[in-house]
Amino acid sequence: MNKVTATINSIQGLSKESMEKARSRQNQLTKPAGSLGILEDLSVKIAGITGKHRPRLDHKAVFIFAGDHGVVKEGVSAYPAEVTAQMVYNFLNKGAAINVLSRHIGARVIVVDAGVATNLTVHNDLVIRKIGYGTNNITNDCAMTEEQADESLILGIEMIEQECKKGLDIAALGEMGIGNTTPSAAIASVMTGLPVEKVTGKGTGINDNQRDHKISIIKKAIDFHKPYLSDGLAILMRLGGFEIGAIAGAVLGAAAHHIPVVIDGFISTAGALIAHSICPGVSPYIIASHVSAETGHAAMLSQLNAAPLFDLHMRLGEGTGAALAMNIADAACKLLDQMATFEEAGVSDKE
Amino acid sequence: MNKVTATINSIQGLSKESMEKARSRQNQLTKPAGSLGILEDLSVKIAGITGKHRPRLDHKAVFIFAGDHGVVKEGVSAYPAEVTAQMVYNFLNKGAAINVLSRHIGARVIVVDAGVATNLTVHNDLVIRKIGYGTNNITNDCAMTEEQADESLILGIEMIEQECKKGLDIAALGEMGIGNTTPSAAIASVMTGLPVEKVTGKGTGINDNQRDHKISIIKKAIDFHKPYLSDGLAILMRLGGFEIGAIAGAVLGAAAHHIPVVIDGFISTAGALIAHSICPGVSPYIIASHVSAETGHAAMLSQLNAAPLFDLHMRLGEGTGAALAMNIADAACKLLDQMATFEEAGVSDKE
Repeated sequence: MNKVTATINSIQGLSKESMEKARSRQNQLTKPAGSLGILEDLSVKIAGITGKHRPRLDHKAVFIFAGDHGVVKEGVSAYPAEVTAQMVYNFLNKGAAINVLSRHIGARVIVVDAGVATNLTVHNDLVIRKIGYGTNNITNDCAMTEEQADESLILGIEMIEQECKKGLDIAALGEMGIGNTTPSAAIASVMTGLPVEKVTGKGTGINDNQRDHKISIIKKAIDFHKPYLSDGLAILMRLGGFEIGAIAGAVLGAAAHHIPVVIDGFISTAGALIAHSICPGVSPYIIASHVSAETGHAAMLSQLNAAPLFDLHMRLGEGTGAALAMNIADAACKLLDQMATFEEAGVSDKE
Repeated sequence: MNKVTATINSIQGLSKESMEKARSRQNQLTKPAGSLGILEDLSVKIAGITGKHRPRLDHKAVFIFAGDHGVVKEGVSAYPAEVTAQMVYNFLNKGAAINVLSRHIGARVIVVDAGVATNLTVHNDLVIRKIGYGTNNITNDCAMTEEQADESLILGIEMIEQECKKGLDIAALGEMGIGNTTPSAAIASVMTGLPVEKVTGKGTGINDNQRDHKISIIKKAIDFHKPYLSDGLAILMRLGGFEIGAIAGAVLGAAAHHIPVVIDGFISTAGALIAHSICPGVSPYIIASHVSAETGHAAMLSQLNAAPLFDLHMRLGEGTGAALAMNIADAACKLLDQMATFEEAGVSDKE
């Protein structure tokens, strides 16, 4: 676990100096101090993450990690498993929601096959780093081997490193994987200590009966692995997914490289919980975008101590919520950087 | 009141046909139906407003109506009255928060002198349509004459009409006016029936004692005018501001021209309440952007039956919250228009 350990060891705290300078500048800008609310806090946080007191978020990237899940055999999803691959092609053809939103916010999209169950056609915009042909069925087996768990973390770290070479100021973490709310709910239950019922939703749209079945499957999986769920890596190996591991790795990599990392919904946050369990120092580097409509997401964010920016009742994944939040972060940094001060504008300050 | 009456008479309901077509398209796009949450509802609403089932919001405008207030003599604001004019110049020099956000979202900014207390220097980007040199002190006088109230509504209507000629797909309504949370709180109390304490905040940043004083001033004003506050126009004339009237007029004008109109914070919403009182048919044309941190704003939105998109604890005004919301509306419409359908993308739908 050399690469992962090295990455963890290089994660530091935020730059207090940059945060103080940013806050001081916010208080000189032509507005009542504090009147931009959370936008001000966000700009100060990003100053601390990047070590720049007037950070710019010119280079934005949305990562979509795709993977399949053996547990879909148990009938936990409303959609057939082949949709994972079909949606990867939809991303490459720029027809999915995340493509539209990435264009809207000026972000590049990096699609990564972390473990789709079928061989995907080679495409210029597709990174094929398949760790396995889908995970094993977690009700009676480990999702993956320890080596694969390690590999999935390294994949996430290396994707961040690769994009850093092109210029990367902020990263959003999305995913695609039919069935992946099931391992995510299992992770959420184990990590938060909440009963499975409280963290299991309807995913892409199952009905109440199907949800009851999904809950029983998740309980079965947790019961099977219970004695061994001692840490983040074990939880990833036993209950996880390749895309979830890659997301966890990307969180670690972003923190190590002083890149603000925006998490999305239920699955993305499961990945962040794994990363946080492996290295609690990632917390201040994470920006929580939204509360998903998926049951349990709010509890996962609380566990991460991450306050979401908005709640638009979204539950799509792909990084869609994170993309919108990245745009808000961009606005927050532009306000800090581009607004005139009272002195520059010749505006009288508070009496 | 001919122009205003003509405008009101031309306001119709939303296009059901366009809404149905938009909803039907949303259900064919490559995502679980409903998974984009409020973004889907917003796109359908805008389809209904514009009468286009795949609306595009290419032409965006932020209107900033500026005006001064006689009631500042009573010591209700943390900032001196000359800041209104100073901030107008800051807008023209592109140094204010709303300039940064308008650039960020690709909107043009229209700065309108509706009633600043001093003569402003002529500038290419400034519309000088001064209705008066600030309002009168509402504690012992009408804010303006009935003719001026009418004129302020017409100003808002005409500004929308003028921008429609250049192409206008969505409008955001902001303002600048030292002291203008005071008339807005008075309007809010009268319109919602809530006690003054419940709708009076700290504006640009007064302390608790100053807020108590502000509350007493607002009560004095309401008591003075109470017998005559029979309708929206009377409330505007007696308690309002020139920029508040112009905002009300712009809401009427936008509704008449099938333009979605995004309201901002406390003052912008006071204008919308006046418009709504004059013509309840404006409601479906209004998009509420955010809940302001200013006390009472949530109650005003409830009175309008308008659900805000986000809450970032902002309380700046200028149209800053509305600008961010306009960007979300743009994203919502792009998703509706640009996403691939299941059929186009060859993705299997729900089993």
